[in-house]
Amino acid sequence: MEHTYKHIELTGSSAESSDKAVQNAIEKAAKSLKNIHWFQVIDTRGYVEEGTVKYWQVTIKVGFRIED
Amino acid sequence: MEHTYKHIELTGSSAESSDKAVQNAIEKAAKSLKNIHWFQVIDTRGYVEEGTVKYWQVTIKVGFRIED
Amino acid sequence: MEHTYKHIELTGSSAESSDKAVQNAIEKAAKSLKNIHWFQVIDTRGYVEEGTVKYWQVTIKVGFRIED
Amino acid sequence: MEHTYKHIELTGSSAESSDKAVQNAIEKAAKSLKNIHWFQVIDTRGYVEEGTVKYWQVTIKVGFRIED
Amino acid sequence: MEHTYKHIELTGSSAESSDKAVQNAIEKAAKSLKNIHWFQVIDTRGYVEEGTVKYWQVTIKVGFRIED
Amino acid sequence: MEHTYKHIELTGSSAESSDKAVQNAIEKAAKSLKNIHWFQVIDTRGYVEEGTVKYWQVTIKVGFRIED
Amino acid sequence: MEHTYKHIELTGSSAESSDKAVQNAIEKAAKSLKNIHWFQVIDTRGYVEEGTVKYWQVTIKVGFRIED
Amino acid sequence: MEHTYKHIELTGSSAESSDKAVQNAIEKAAKSLKNIHWFQVIDTRGYVEEGTVKYWQVTIKVGFRIED
Amino acid sequence: MEHTYKHIELTGSSAESSDKAVQNAIEKAAKSLKNIHWFQVIDTRGYVEEGTVKYWQVTIKVGFRIED
Amino acid sequence: MEHTYKHIELTGSSAESSDKAVQNAIEKAAKSLKNIHWFQVIDTRGYVEEGTVKYWQVTIKVGFRIED
Amino acid sequence: MEHTYKHIELTGSSAESSDKAVQNAIEKAAKSLKNIHWFQVIDTRGYVEEGTVKYWQVTIKVGFRIED
Amino acid sequence: MEHTYKHIELTGSSAESSDKAVQNAIEKAAKSLKNIHWFQVIDTRGYVEEGTVKYWQVTIKVGFRIED
Repeated sequence: MEHTYKHIELTGSSAESSDKAVQNAIEKAAKSLKNIHWFQVIDTRGYVEEGTVKYWQVTIKVGFRIED
Repeated sequence: MEHTYKHIELTGSSAESSDKAVQNAIEKAAKSLKNIHWFQVIDTRGYVEEGTVKYWQVTIKVGFRIED
Repeated sequence: MEHTYKHIELTGSSAESSDKAVQNAIEKAAKSLKNIHWFQVIDTRGYVEEGTVKYWQVTIKVGFRIED
Repeated sequence: MEHTYKHIELTGSSAESSDKAVQNAIEKAAKSLKNIHWFQVIDTRGYVEEGTVKYWQVTIKVGFRIED
Repeated sequence: MEHTYKHIELTGSSAESSDKAVQNAIEKAAKSLKNIHWFQVIDTRGYVEEGTVKYWQVTIKVGFRIED
Repeated sequence: MEHTYKHIELTGSSAESSDKAVQNAIEKAAKSLKNIHWFQVIDTRGYVEEGTVKYWQVTIKVGFRIED
Repeated sequence: MEHTYKHIELTGSSAESSDKAVQNAIEKAAKSLKNIHWFQVIDTRGYVEEGTVKYWQVTIKVGFRIED
Repeated sequence: MEHTYKHIELTGSSAESSDKAVQNAIEKAAKSLKNIHWFQVIDTRGYVEEGTVKYWQVTIKVGFRIED
Repeated sequence: MEHTYKHIELTGSSAESSDKAVQNAIEKAAKSLKNIHWFQVIDTRGYVEEGTVKYWQVTIKVGFRIED
Repeated sequence: MEHTYKHIELTGSSAESSDKAVQNAIEKAAKSLKNIHWFQVIDTRGYVEEGTVKYWQVTIKVGFRIED
Repeated sequence: MEHTYKHIELTGSSAESSDKAVQNAIEKAAKSLKNIHWFQVIDTRGYVEEGTVKYWQVTIKVGFRIED
Repeated sequence: MEHTYKHIELTGSSAESSDKAVQNAIEKAAKSLKNIHWFQVIDTRGYVEEGTVKYWQVTIKVGFRIED
């Protein structure tokens, strides 16, 4: 089948882990987009307070199928 | 004139050729977007079955003018 | 707080300067998007007529917070 | 399922077209590898004689599943 | 000593975490390769179902010493 | 032999296909340069009108031997 | 305010996880630097022994404000 | 129309501003080249004396149409 | 002469312009470093409030000669 | 002729020079591979002891023709 | 002074060493260009025969001042 | 052991060879830094006078262990 996919770029954050920041961004996106089926990590950053990672900020590309 | 353009990223697919995968993505996008005027190829991939390219998947950036 | 941000890519133009092209893209985007809070310059180009920069075209990523 | 994939890099050539150079590399690889399921174009080059593209040389990454 | 190393590229997957996807790829490779001594993460992707990361797919380069 | 090569960058266009845009650039260059012997594709873009690729614009590096 | 920031590049290691390697580098840096406020992951590598990730080595850029 | 364009790389300098360094390079190039119609900024550097930017050095690609 | 140079990475900010952000970072660095003689722009970003660039943040590499 | 080439990635080392590290990797590879015909340098690194380069480590891609 | 520089890309070869390949390209270029004042190495490759580097091919950018 | 490493960027120069420029930068750095244990070549440039490489300028990253 000749599907078309659109990609959008999101940054999710999490105080817990870099993986959780990805999951948070996808959950938020899934509220308004159907058919999300993959992501790619583009950039991993974070904020620091008093020598501790306060929260992770991971930028991902998310791909979803455009419905016919 | 001081126009502003927006770019979106799409992946089109085609069983026929890499050029056709680009054309398919643009056609699909043109259904909901006016003023598309250029694209740039970002990535060319494909799926293989039994030693044959089954379909091409070409990711493009598409630029369109934001109307005033 | 575990905010999520979306990034979009825009090209602004200006006959005046590269900085003004950035400002023009942001102004246009702010008409339809709330919560824009940063940009990153991706590409700086321009058109030339008779040996003079006729207008600057600067492509930026713009980040805005997705509301909960 | 938690599959593992291996990627190898190949350059295929064709006097006919860039797409055909990809297909030629995959066909040759499929003679010794089972389970090839995708490719990605890495580089497109070619040789020229007397102002004509004599043959296309396209470098691809090919991914195949390592059997358990 | 003037050792020579070879690098191969693998994608491991895991439903659990991005780190576990790396570990899975290395374990599978270690079944047929002796002397693996380092890896480098090249790309982190994943598949999504119903707004949840279903599994992580991490591509790594693995380096191993070629025996004399 | 210790030859020296020079590379120049060209953009060719074609209404027909991306491969033809490469061929067009090489033909034009060959009118003034002897000894062209390879090219590399640097960027593939195109212009769109009414949801159709109007013409392909492919940027290539062309290498030719400097005569002694 | 017109602050100035300096960035330094560090590699942290951890036997436990890639996230912990980042945290370890930041903790060590915070012993001699005040005002660290962000990091960016540059490279994720690791050492392997007997088919197991022995420790993770994550290279980060760390940014801190230069005091006036 | 199936035009062919050539790109050349220039570095312009200016004591005044980064934008002026671009304009200076284009003016100089326009003395010997007709049909210059775009540029892209590749690199922005500068020389410093006693804590002050003494002059800006901006490297651009300049594109011009090859006449038939 | 066989000099050695060290490079450091700084981010300067300015409410006024991108060029001024570069100048601000260099001025601050020159307070503690002698022999600064060049910079290279690495990244241009900025913060936005109410659809206006509030301040520019430009990251540069600064090179200075290590004294013998 | 429509040959197919495979590329592998190797790191050679030498206490003597960076060029010698390349030669060492190729000699080792040539023991098991026929038809090696080119290489490309990917990365040049080295180990240091007491302020002296102890050995060079150069990573190369090596291309060889797959026999029909 | 507000000089303008042009950059060209050359590949030099040498049977002897990678450094000599650079020197050979510069010597050849200096026959027709005055005012060459710097180069940058872009790519280092080579041809192999019977497990030995037969000749080095180094691609450089060469910068020269355009006279007023 | 969970060591932390810091990387700094240096440019060494040599009239003799590119390898010697690396060695010169490391020697100079070793005067003030203990525990240097690796380098990576980032950029190879040089200055030219009268068609001859006058001196090589090689930029490296140098890594050293931060003591506990």
